[in-house]
Amino acid sequence: MSEAFSFRLLAQDGAARRGEISTPRGNIRTPAFMPVGTAATVKAMHPGRVAATGADVVLANTYHLMLRPGPERVARLGGLHRLMNWPGPILTDSGGFQVMSLARLRKLTEEGVAFQSHIDGSRHMLTPERSMEIQHLLGADIQMQFDECVRLPCSDDEARRAMELSLRWAARSKAAFARAPGRALFGIVQGGASKPLRVESARALVSMGFEGHALGGLAVGEPQAVMLDMIETAEPELPRDKPRYLMGVGTPDDLIEAVARGIDMFDCVMPTRAGRHGLAYSRFGKINLRNARHAEDVAPIDPASDNAATNSWSRAYLHHLVKAGEILGMMLLTEVNLAYYQALMAGARAAVAQGRFADYRAEVKEGWARGEGAA
Amino acid sequence: MSEAFSFRLLAQDGAARRGEISTPRGNIRTPAFMPVGTAATVKAMHPGRVAATGADVVLANTYHLMLRPGPERVARLGGLHRLMNWPGPILTDSGGFQVMSLARLRKLTEEGVAFQSHIDGSRHMLTPERSMEIQHLLGADIQMQFDECVRLPCSDDEARRAMELSLRWAARSKAAFARAPGRALFGIVQGGASKPLRVESARALVSMGFEGHALGGLAVGEPQAVMLDMIETAEPELPRDKPRYLMGVGTPDDLIEAVARGIDMFDCVMPTRAGRHGLAYSRFGKINLRNARHAEDVAPIDPASDNAATNSWSRAYLHHLVKAGEILGMMLLTEVNLAYYQALMAGARAAVAQGRFADYRAEVKEGWARGEGAA
Repeated sequence: MSEAFSFRLLAQDGAARRGEISTPRGNIRTPAFMPVGTAATVKAMHPGRVAATGADVVLANTYHLMLRPGPERVARLGGLHRLMNWPGPILTDSGGFQVMSLARLRKLTEEGVAFQSHIDGSRHMLTPERSMEIQHLLGADIQMQFDECVRLPCSDDEARRAMELSLRWAARSKAAFARAPGRALFGIVQGGASKPLRVESARALVSMGFEGHALGGLAVGEPQAVMLDMIETAEPELPRDKPRYLMGVGTPDDLIEAVARGIDMFDCVMPTRAGRHGLAYSRFGKINLRNARHAEDVAPIDPASDNAATNSWSRAYLHHLVKAGEILGMMLLTEVNLAYYQALMAGARAAVAQGRFADYRAEVKEGWARGEGAA
Repeated sequence: MSEAFSFRLLAQDGAARRGEISTPRGNIRTPAFMPVGTAATVKAMHPGRVAATGADVVLANTYHLMLRPGPERVARLGGLHRLMNWPGPILTDSGGFQVMSLARLRKLTEEGVAFQSHIDGSRHMLTPERSMEIQHLLGADIQMQFDECVRLPCSDDEARRAMELSLRWAARSKAAFARAPGRALFGIVQGGASKPLRVESARALVSMGFEGHALGGLAVGEPQAVMLDMIETAEPELPRDKPRYLMGVGTPDDLIEAVARGIDMFDCVMPTRAGRHGLAYSRFGKINLRNARHAEDVAPIDPASDNAATNSWSRAYLHHLVKAGEILGMMLLTEVNLAYYQALMAGARAAVAQGRFADYRAEVKEGWARGEGAA
C-alpha cells in the first residue's frame, strides 16, 4: 500500500514480468487476474470468497453501473467499495466496449455515444468527460480512458478511424480525469489487427503520460495468433515502468501466452461465466461437470489446490448440483475457476522471480494436455 | 456429542422447553430450527455459512434425493454428510409429504405410494420399508416414519383413514428401521384438524416407542389458530423426555407460538425461499428489498445482528442486487433469514433458561409490530 499510485517492476524473465502496483487501497501483485464484478458483484461470489481465491483487485463495469443503480446514487451510498464491501482496489472500464455490444440504438459521434439502455430503453449519453465523471463517482482506483473498440476483422480504414477517435478521446479523458491521490488513469491502445496502427496508437498514448497502458479491441473474434501478434507489436512501445493490461482476456492459455509477451493485468468473464454453466478450469484443463462420467467421481476438482471449493467437494456432488440447477453449483464452480486463474497467475509470478517462466509455461500446458483424469 | 441418540430437557418455562439432543455427529440445541437442504444443499448457501448462522442440524428431502442423485448412489459416495460437506446431524423426512405434493400420477394403496417423478416421469414406489431404506442409505441421523399427510380442510372420515394408515405405516417403519448406533426414528402424529384423532394418533405412537415425535399435516392451509389448537391437543400426550418436532413450520410467529406450546424442533423452506425472492426476516418484521424506498438506505438489515450478511451490507445494496437479479442477493438474503431464524431460537432458549419466555415472546412481537424503520 502507498498514498500514491505506483508500479514497481520486481523481476523480468524474457518478456515476462513480475511486479507490484501500489494503491492506497492495497497492492496488486502482477501478473494479476481481475475478477469481473459487472454490476457491483462478482456473480455468485461472496466478496470474502473472492479475496480468499487470491484476487487483489476486481473490475466493475461503468456501462452496467451507470444504468443501475446509477453513479450519483453509488456516490451518495459512499462509493463502490463500501457498497460492495470490497476494501481492495477496483478498476472500472470506460463503458466504451459494452455500450457498443449491449446498448440499443447507438449513435456514435465525435462527441461520444448516445444510446438506449438495454434494461429499460432509457436514453443516455457516454462521452469521455461523462465516463471520467462516472468512474470518479464510483470511486475507482484505476480508471480507463473512453475509447471505441471495433470488432475484428475490420478494414484498415475503419480501424484507423476508431483508433484516431480513441486517441482524441484519450486526450479528452485525460483532461477530464479528476486527479485524486492514489487514483490512476490508463490509456488504451487500439488499431484493430494492424501493426502500424497499433504502434501509432501506443506511441501517441505514451506521449500523453498515462499511469498505465491497456491493449483494447483484442479477443473480439480474431484467432489467438493475431492477438499475440498485436501484443508483440505494441509491447516494445510501452514504457517498462508502467503496468500493461490486456482487456477482456481470456482463456488460461491466452493469459500464459500474454504474460510471456510482457502483459501484467487481465480481466475476463470467462471463469465466472463458465462456473455458472457447469465448467471448471483446472490444472488438468477444462472439466465439464454436466458430463455423466462425473456422477460417481469422488475426486475433487483438484486435491492439491489450497482452495476449499476446489479440494473439498467431489466432482460427483458438483455434477449433482449442476444437473439439479442448484445455485451452490454455480457458487462453488465460480470459486473453483477464480481460484484456478489466481493460482495460474501466482505460479507465473513465482516462475518469473525464479527465472523459470519458460519451464512454467511448458508445465502448465503439459497439465492441460494430459487432461482431467490425470490427477 | 454422544455415542447414543439422547435428549435432555434442560429447562422449562410454562410449556416452553429448552433442551439438547445429542448425536454422534454433534448436539442440537432446542428449540431448534433446521434449514431445509432439499436436494443435498441448503439453496444458495455455502455449508460453512449455514453453520455460521448457528444451525446445528439440516433437513434433507427423501423424495428429491431418491430421484436425484438416488440413495444407492449417495451411499456409494459415502453418504449425505460427506457429499454435502456437512459434518453435523442431518434429519431426513420420509418422502410422504412431497410425493403427495410434487409427484405425478400418484396411486396410494395400503402398500405405499406409486408415482412418477416430476423430473423425468420415471416410475417409483415409496413404502414404509423403502423410505426407511432410503433414509438409511442417505445416512440420516434422524429418520422420519413414512406417513400420509392430508390437506386441510378435510372430512373427519378422510382424516381418520389417513391417520390410521399412517399408524400402520408407523409400525412398518419401526420394524424396517435399521437400528444403528446414534440414529433415531421419529413417529408422526396425524389426524387433520380433529382433536380426538390427534389424541388417538399420539397415544398409539407413544406406545410404539419412538425416539421422538413429530406433528405432521399442519401448516397445510389451515388458520394458525387451528394449528396451535392441534399442538395444544397433542402436546400433553407426548412424553416430556423426548423431542417434539412440528414439521414444515413456519413463520417466525408460528415458531414462537409453537415453542410456547412445547415444541422443540422446526423446519421450513420459508426463510430460504423468501431470501431468493427479495424478502428479509428481521427483528423488525418482514422487509421487502424490492421496495424502491430501500434504494438509498445505507442501513443494514440489522446493525445489532452478529451475522455478517445482516450487519455488513446496506439495504440499498441488497435492493440493487435483487433488482438486478444477482445471485449474491439471494445468497445474502438467504443467510440473513437463516441467521434471523437461528437468533430467534437462540433467544427462546436463553429466555426459557431465565424463566422469562413470556417476556421474550412479547418483546419479539413488539419488534415486529414496530416495523422495519424502527432500528
